[in-house]
Amino acid sequence: MPPAKTRKPPKDDSHAPIPSATVSRMVTYLRILTKLEGEGVNRTSSEVLAEQARVSAFQVRKDLAYFGRFGVRGMGYTVLTLRRELEYILGMTENNPWNVGLVGLGRLGQAIADFPGIVGGYFHLVALFDHDERKVGQTFGDLRVSAMDELPVVAERTQMNIGIICVPAEAAQGVADQLVGPAVKVKGILNFAPTTLHVPDNVIVEPVDFLAGMKRLAFYILNPNLKDTKEEKK
Amino acid sequence: MPPAKTRKPPKDDSHAPIPSATVSRMVTYLRILTKLEGEGVNRTSSEVLAEQARVSAFQVRKDLAYFGRFGVRGMGYTVLTLRRELEYILGMTENNPWNVGLVGLGRLGQAIADFPGIVGGYFHLVALFDHDERKVGQTFGDLRVSAMDELPVVAERTQMNIGIICVPAEAAQGVADQLVGPAVKVKGILNFAPTTLHVPDNVIVEPVDFLAGMKRLAFYILNPNLKDTKEEKK
Repeated sequence: MPPAKTRKPPKDDSHAPIPSATVSRMVTYLRILTKLEGEGVNRTSSEVLAEQARVSAFQVRKDLAYFGRFGVRGMGYTVLTLRRELEYILGMTENNPWNVGLVGLGRLGQAIADFPGIVGGYFHLVALFDHDERKVGQTFGDLRVSAMDELPVVAERTQMNIGIICVPAEAAQGVADQLVGPAVKVKGILNFAPTTLHVPDNVIVEPVDFLAGMKRLAFYILNPNLKDTKEEKK
Repeated sequence: MPPAKTRKPPKDDSHAPIPSATVSRMVTYLRILTKLEGEGVNRTSSEVLAEQARVSAFQVRKDLAYFGRFGVRGMGYTVLTLRRELEYILGMTENNPWNVGLVGLGRLGQAIADFPGIVGGYFHLVALFDHDERKVGQTFGDLRVSAMDELPVVAERTQMNIGIICVPAEAAQGVADQLVGPAVKVKGILNFAPTTLHVPDNVIVEPVDFLAGMKRLAFYILNPNLKDTKEEKK
């Protein structure tokens, strides 16, 4: 019997929330599956995914169960099929044009603008913005840097729906306000500024705070016994 | 009655693991308290922290309870005291020298090497490494870039205990192996490469994967009703 090819809807129709940690792990599983596929591996199992993602096999099965049934009991998963299912679940398909505008062309912004997967892949970098008039008009890659007051016009022309904020903390809320302004249809923001953004309820913010990562690191180095190993490995 | 000044030990002696989400939120609370203190605010409450961190007040109290008792019931918290307690808990004190070595001086590495809080604050950038011999010997800030084979010697001389990996995914595991090698005393790694690192159990890895953030963003934009709002706001 071949593995199920169609994705089942979530377990019930109540739209139970899915923990963000589960979504994060789905992203990890997708990365692992893509790597396995590149290595020519055809079949895998929750145990293999668990080992590479450093979680328990039970966690893998529990995470996947939020989204439906995959694979066949005792036979594991077809790498290609599961990879495609996860891409579908995560919205990484050609049907979902993710048009990304990046604000702040400092060194970090330039590094992100160059990052494989944002340029290319399912995310398309379509616009760059900076408030510094010396940067406006310069090009990075194929894109010209626009001024901040061009944002509504450029965002509409490029169908921008995701914004990346690479400006200093003190400027970030102002940029976020512009990104969610009436003429701009940004539905999500990747925020590199170390500050909490206040946005309307229908806008999603994902913070990327590497100083927070450094602080978690310091805490767990000092308190290795408080690390919740269940979360990460068996 | 003044608020408690000394930090109580964790609830019991069983060293119950603390969820990494709690540690992440402690970092957020610390950031908010530092901001409030800078604004001259003397007292605060779980409601204020909750609103700014976009979690529930119950979540704030539950998170803090992992580490002891703070404040006085019905009277809230002294900003200065709680800020200091959280810094102590997170290991952000002068007693904990965090000596950071950064590997990979591409644009991302250069941006991180410049980032406020890594240069200055409780983290001290003490060493830079790159495998590209054209970069070795160059200086960024006050630091000379060392070659990879100098890593053991430089790490020992600088008492390096945290490593930051800013190399491409395919080179990251090799760098991690060098960072946890016998002569190097790195206890934690902040990993910017989009790959899972395998390290000994006594080494902590914190991934900073902004493509994962982009994918979570895409997922939640497509499925806003699956966002677990309990995790983030009341």
